[in-house]
Parts: sequence; structure tokens; C-alpha cells
Amino acid sequence: MAHQEKETSGLEWRITLGDGSSKSLVPETGPVSRIWMWLKGLMAGLVLKVWKFLNKAWDIGVEDPRKVIHCLKAGMALTVVSLVYFTRPLYEGVGGNAMWAVMTVVVVFENTVGATISKSLNRVIGTTLAGFLAFGVHWVASLSGQKFEPLIIGASVFLLASAATFSRFIPSVKARFDYGALIFILTFSLVAVSGYRVDKLFALAHQRISTIIIGTCLCILVTMLICPIWAGQELHALTCRNMDKLAGSLEGCVEEYFDNNGELEDSDKHPDKKLLGYKCVLNSKTTEESMANFARLEPAHGRFNFKHPWQQYLKIGASMRSCAYSIEALNSCIDSENQAPEFIKKRMSNVCLKVSSNSSCVIKELAKTIKTLKKSSSIDFLVEEMSSAVQDLQNEIKSLSSLLSPAELLLSESKETEKTTSTIHLLEVLPVVILASLLIDISSRIQDIVKTVEELANVAEFKEEADDKAKQNQANINRIVPSQQNDDQQTMKALERA
Amino acid sequence: MAHQEKETSGLEWRITLGDGSSKSLVPETGPVSRIWMWLKGLMAGLVLKVWKFLNKAWDIGVEDPRKVIHCLKAGMALTVVSLVYFTRPLYEGVGGNAMWAVMTVVVVFENTVGATISKSLNRVIGTTLAGFLAFGVHWVASLSGQKFEPLIIGASVFLLASAATFSRFIPSVKARFDYGALIFILTFSLVAVSGYRVDKLFALAHQRISTIIIGTCLCILVTMLICPIWAGQELHALTCRNMDKLAGSLEGCVEEYFDNNGELEDSDKHPDKKLLGYKCVLNSKTTEESMANFARLEPAHGRFNFKHPWQQYLKIGASMRSCAYSIEALNSCIDSENQAPEFIKKRMSNVCLKVSSNSSCVIKELAKTIKTLKKSSSIDFLVEEMSSAVQDLQNEIKSLSSLLSPAELLLSESKETEKTTSTIHLLEVLPVVILASLLIDISSRIQDIVKTVEELANVAEFKEEADDKAKQNQANINRIVPSQQNDDQQTMKALERA
Repeated sequence: MAHQEKETSGLEWRITLGDGSSKSLVPETGPVSRIWMWLKGLMAGLVLKVWKFLNKAWDIGVEDPRKVIHCLKAGMALTVVSLVYFTRPLYEGVGGNAMWAVMTVVVVFENTVGATISKSLNRVIGTTLAGFLAFGVHWVASLSGQKFEPLIIGASVFLLASAATFSRFIPSVKARFDYGALIFILTFSLVAVSGYRVDKLFALAHQRISTIIIGTCLCILVTMLICPIWAGQELHALTCRNMDKLAGSLEGCVEEYFDNNGELEDSDKHPDKKLLGYKCVLNSKTTEESMANFARLEPAHGRFNFKHPWQQYLKIGASMRSCAYSIEALNSCIDSENQAPEFIKKRMSNVCLKVSSNSSCVIKELAKTIKTLKKSSSIDFLVEEMSSAVQDLQNEIKSLSSLLSPAELLLSESKETEKTTSTIHLLEVLPVVILASLLIDISSRIQDIVKTVEELANVAEFKEEADDKAKQNQANINRIVPSQQNDDQQTMKALERA
Repeated sequence: MAHQEKETSGLEWRITLGDGSSKSLVPETGPVSRIWMWLKGLMAGLVLKVWKFLNKAWDIGVEDPRKVIHCLKAGMALTVVSLVYFTRPLYEGVGGNAMWAVMTVVVVFENTVGATISKSLNRVIGTTLAGFLAFGVHWVASLSGQKFEPLIIGASVFLLASAATFSRFIPSVKARFDYGALIFILTFSLVAVSGYRVDKLFALAHQRISTIIIGTCLCILVTMLICPIWAGQELHALTCRNMDKLAGSLEGCVEEYFDNNGELEDSDKHPDKKLLGYKCVLNSKTTEESMANFARLEPAHGRFNFKHPWQQYLKIGASMRSCAYSIEALNSCIDSENQAPEFIKKRMSNVCLKVSSNSSCVIKELAKTIKTLKKSSSIDFLVEEMSSAVQDLQNEIKSLSSLLSPAELLLSESKETEKTTSTIHLLEVLPVVILASLLIDISSRIQDIVKTVEELANVAEFKEEADDKAKQNQANINRIVPSQQNDDQQTMKALERA
């Protein structure tokens, strides 16, 4: 559209100039010059567009340099295959084996090791299976005479292609063998269509499958040996990152709500990006599922065994998402125009802030548990902290309730309440009370996350945190003194509050 | 896993039998028989698994017969291509042109017309562009002598493959040209690697591109002419369906909450599936985005023009999702153990039910607007209805507030309140009040949906609903009598309530 507009405006401008050109006869305003100016404008627009595009690409590269490394790896693998086949004499040109090796590398090389292995397996299995089937069909067809040959081949292609296409609609097949089904159809049709005789076909199939295996092995080796990106590790990191984002948004939202006086300095204020971190959690389902699927295929890497329970991460993801939905509700409640009066906010702010910071401490501790692959010694304590903060909040709501019924209050207090009762109405308290009850809801959802993480810790046999550290923590709890340990700030923060 | 368990139990059973076999020497318990039984068990397990799989596949087919039709279409297109090339003499076998036609059909044939067109364009453009570039590189390389030839080709493959791979990380490229970039890399490497001389290459490229164009044209024709599935229509239907689900969940949730006495008959009760309809809305973002992308490429079909504003559907989807988040919060509030006392629930039930049914009427009317592509004449009225119901609800909350402060009440009422004031506390009212405030929040989010749908109606130039119908509706509003029109039940329901 922008392009078209540019052209149109260029035309208009040319017409205007055309009117003017009758006055002056200097060659600069002649048709050649006009076309030149028009082209210049067009080029400038194009250059600007390309520049913007390159800028964006640069940002993506700077943000995640591993993407750039992946591209260089892909380029390298392809160059190796290409040069090997280029420098060796190729008798059949593009139609020969070179093609299959190059094609395999282009199609199979993926960002993560798991994805590459998955595609490789799909390609090898799909090709082999289809090759054998097509071989059988070809043999039967060639026996049945020239008249029936095309009939048998046509019918078999139709049946198998339809069936394989349909299998791609079945979720369990789609998740794992989508590419394999495609390759199956492709290979089967190619072999069935080929005019080769059966004996020649056999030699060809052997060559082709070995070429594909060489291509896939090259891809797997390159992805695994040069700066490998493991789907499992990515899923692991994504889960940790999402937890941190969740904790950040939760704490930030509540802090922002109770900071209407602008007490926080501008530099301390949470940027929108941090507050809206939970949105990433809302949208990460598809990524998590595909990662978990790929991770199953990866060999032991880093701190993960081959049979690491990756499926459990999906459960953790689901519980985080359920928590993020509530934070979304919390956020909309903070954005609403209907605000509680300042003095009620002040009254509630301490308890609410305590619940939100304790809750986010629990989430951060869970993130640490996953990050370090060690059972946390302080998580039970932190959960208890959170529960007691929730209890305090509930009591505070109760006391608000008594504020609303002046009969009881008049007996106990006298001066202040008279003014208060005349102003406090349920509608005024409501925004804060809703915020509070959402916080309570969120804390119960956090307990679900705790459960799923504990399951993960049990199934994956996480080790206990170092015993001495645990003892030290216990000692700190008993003495209730601020700790000087810097490496465990999160736990300590919670302890200080206790 | 299930498979493995089966095997183990088979083994155990064999050992037990083995112990018993020392007593009786009948041949039925001999090792052959044991292996036979074990194999039988294994086979039974396998057959059961296959049976389950086929059952699942059958269900998928029955649920959406168009999937089956798509598979038959794919099979047909492939059979046509295969047979054409099978019956014509093929001089080069699989390596020749047949391969490219078959491959094109397998890879390009997609479920929707838009997706097929998108892949076809990607394939043709990617191949052509890469072909010309590779041709140039080849020419330069062949001029520079045998020594530099592999160097130039290797460097160009490395650079272009890396760049093209990187471009696939850029969201705007990923969304539209992902497949094209892949094909670009593939074609470029293949042509660069090929040992052909430049003049032969030209003839080959011409043949190949024309084969690919024939293949893509066949695919596009088959998808468009035989029971076409349009991405645009799918997106349109998905949006309508999601709206209906949203309306159903909203109404169902609130009805269930206020129906603790089991007044609804079992047959009237909303099945869980309906209540959880909003979950579909939460997860439909990716589908909507790809559909909108494909729909842009589709020609005018059915009631949609070529330039139908498909992007606006994404905005509608986003506003629906925001509404679904609140319904999620509503649902968790209904599931919570913390329930309000029965008499408060009864007091609030009418207003809440009115808000929820009016809200869902608005959503249903919006769904109808989209479904019929006609501006609704009653939507303003329905939105007003909803707003007034929300106002009533707010008043009801206010009156609850006065119930809580007995001082005022003791003056006006006497008998009942004494008992009431002693029991009502803020904490007890809270669950219902939170539900009510969520309903208010949802109704404001519904107004966002109304706005996005109105934008769609303006941009896509929806027609007004037939004038006579509008007049009739207006008359009904004035007379407030139940209408006998059956084709417009939804509007009428709302009118009856007015």
C-alpha cells in the first residue's frame, strides 16, 4: 500500500511539474530529470525500508546471539555438503545423489538438537518405510501386466497418500510424525512413479537412503558439537524465566497500585515491560509443547539425563498459566477507574504488599529450585509465610467489615470512627477488597505451582540443598537475625520479614 | 510404556506357568505353547492399540468430514500427477521433471486455499529468485578459473544460506515467507553445486520452473474447485463459534453458581463442555494469526471480497481473549469453597443473572452480526440493556452496603434486620460481591468487543439489517409484547426481558 501511494504521489508531482515546465526550458526540469527525481524518491523509500528491515534484523541478532550462531552453523553444514559434492565428479548432475544430501541438510537442520534429531528420524524412517512399500507395490504391478500396472500404481498412490494425509490430522501423529508422513507420501509417489525396473530400483534405494543418512548425521553432529542449543535446556530456561516474570509482574502490579503518591522514584518504578511480563506466560503453551516433544529425543546433556521428565514441565507451565490469568484480572482491577479512597488504601497497603511480596518470593524460590535442580530447604517455610500473610489479609478484611458496621465500633472507639462511618461504604472499599481477594486467589494458585514443581523434584530426583546451608537457614529462623549471606538473598529477604 | 508392561506381565505369567508345568506333562504347557501364548498376548495388545488408534481417527473424520474430503483431494491431485508422468515416457527417471511435479504437489497441497496459494507463491518465487542468483554466481565462478571456482561457490552458499536462515527468525518474514526462504536455500545450493555448464543450466531451469508452475497450478485448482476450504471463511466461522462459546460459558457459569438448590433439571444443566467453552478462546491466537495471513491471499469467495479486512478479526480475537481471561477468574471464583450464605445469594441472584444473560445476549448478537455480515439494528439497544443491568447490579451492591451498616437500617426496617445485622459480615458478602464486580468487569470488556466488531462492520461495509425488520423490532420495543418471530429469537429474548 505504502509503495503504491508513493507511486501515485510521484505521478501527481510529476504532473504539477509538467505544468510548470512550460515556463522554463532549462533541461533540469525536462522529462528525463522528472523521471530521475521520481526514481530517486522511489529508491529513497526503498532504501529506507531495507534499512529499517536490517535494523530490525540486527536487533534480533543482538538480543539473542545464538540465533546468529545457528545461522552460521546452517551455512557451514550446507557449504560442507555442497563442496564435497561439487569437488567430487558428479556423473548425474543435480539429479544424482548430491541433490539428496543437500536437500536433507537444508530441510533437516533445525535450531535445537531435539528438533534436528526429530526431523532426521522422521526423514529416515519415512523414506525407508515408503521405499519398501513402494518396492512391493512396484513388484506386484510389474507382475500384473502392462494393462493393470497404471491402475494398481494409481490406486495405491491414492490410498496411501489419502491415509497419510489424514494421519497428519491426528494430534498424536501431528505432534511427532508430521514431517515423516510428508516424506512418506513423497518417497512413495516418487518410487511408484519412477519408470525403473525393480533390480535397478533396489540399488537406487540403497544409494539414496545412505545419502540421506549421511546428510542427517552431518546435521546432527554439527548441531550437537558446535554451540549446541538443546530443546530441553531451552524449555528449562523458559520455565525459569517465565516464573521470574510472573513474580516480577505480581509484585510490580501491587506496588504500583499502592503507590499513588509517587513515593517510588521514577528510576525505581517498574517499567511497563516488567509489569506485563505475565503476558509471555499466557502465550507460551505452543512453544512449551513442541520443546517438550523435542527434548524427549535428546541424549543426556548438561545436568539433564536422557529420561528427564520433560512432560512435567508442561504441567508446571499450565499451573503458571492459571496463575497468570489471575494476574491479568489483577492488572485490569488496577487499571480500572474505580479507585478506593486514599486512607483505605493506606490501611490495606501493608498487608497486601506483604502477601504479594511473599507470594513472589515463593515463585522466585521455585524458579531457583528449577534453576539449580536442587530441592529447596526453605520452600515450606516460605509457603507458610505466604499462608500467614494471607491469613493476616483475611483478618484485615474482617476488620474492615467491622469498620463498616458502626454499632460495634461506637462502643470501642469514639472520635475517629464517627467521621469514618459517615464516609465508608461498601462500594468504596470494594476495589481494595477485590484486589485482596484476587491476591488470595493467586496465592492458592501458587500452591498448585508448588505442587507441580515438587512432583518434578521427586520424579527427577533433585538433590537436597547442601545440608550445612539448610542448617544455617534453620539457625537463622530460630534466631531471627538478618543474615549476611549474599548468595541466597531471596530466602533471606523472607526471613528478615519474619 | 503400556506396551512394556504388557510384555513384563506376559513374562511373569510364563514363569508361573513354568512352575506349574513340572506337574503336568501335557504338550499345551510346553515352551512352544508358552511362546505362542506370549505372542498371542503381544498381538492382542497391538491389535487393541491399533483399534483404539483407528477409532480415534474415525472420530476425527466423523467430527469434521471436510478433513476426509481434504485427504481424498490430496490423494487425487497426487494420483493425477503421478499417472501423467508414469504413462508418459520418462527419459530421466526419478531424477527428471516428474520428480519436481510430484514433490511440488506433495509439499504445496494444504488444507485451505489460502495456505496452498501461499506455499505455491513461496515455492515459485523462492525457486525463481534463487535460480537467477545461482545462475549469476555460477557464471562468475566459471569465469574465475578452476582454482577459485569452489571458493566462490562455497563462500556464496555460506553467505546466502546463513542470511536466508537468519531471515526466518524475523517475525514478519517467518509469518509469510518461511517456506520461501527454505526453498531459496535449497534451490540456490542445488544449482550452485550442479556441475552443469551455464548454457545447459538455462534450459534445465526453464524446464524445472515450468514443472513447478504446473504442479502448483494443479494444486490451486484442485483446492479451489473441489469442496474448497477457505482460510477466510474458517477464520470467520471460528470467530463466530468462539463468540457463541464465550456467551454460553458466561451465562452457564453464573447460572450454575446461583443454582445450588438443584432447581435446574439434570437435562437442563450445562455440561462441563459448554461451561469450559471459553478455554477454546484462550488458545486460538496462533490459529487466528495464520488463518488471517492465508486469507489475505485468497480471491473473493462466498460473501467475502478480496480485500475483506481479515486483520480486524485478530483485533476481535484479542478483545474476546481479554474477556475470556475474566471469565476464567469468574470460573475460579465459582469453584472456590468460600461460598456466600444462601439468602444473600438469593438476594443477588436476579440482578446477576440479568447482567450475565444480557451480556451474553450482546455477544450472541455480535456473533450474529458477523455471521450474517449485516449491521445489527438492535445492538445499541442490547448494549444499553446491559449497561442498565450493570447499573442495577451496582445499586444492589450499594444496598448490600447499607445492610451492613445497621445504624441506617434500624430506622427504616425493624424485625428482619435485627437478625440480619447480627449475621452479615463483609467476609460473607464478599464472594457474591466479587462475582458481581467480575461481571461488571466482563461487561466493560464486552463493550471493547462491540467496538472492534463495529470497526469491522464499518471497514467491511456491512449492510444495515433489512429496514422492515428493524422497524418491526422498534415497534416491538415500543409495545413491549413478546414477538412471534422465530428467526430472530435472540433479540426477542432480550426484548421480552425489557
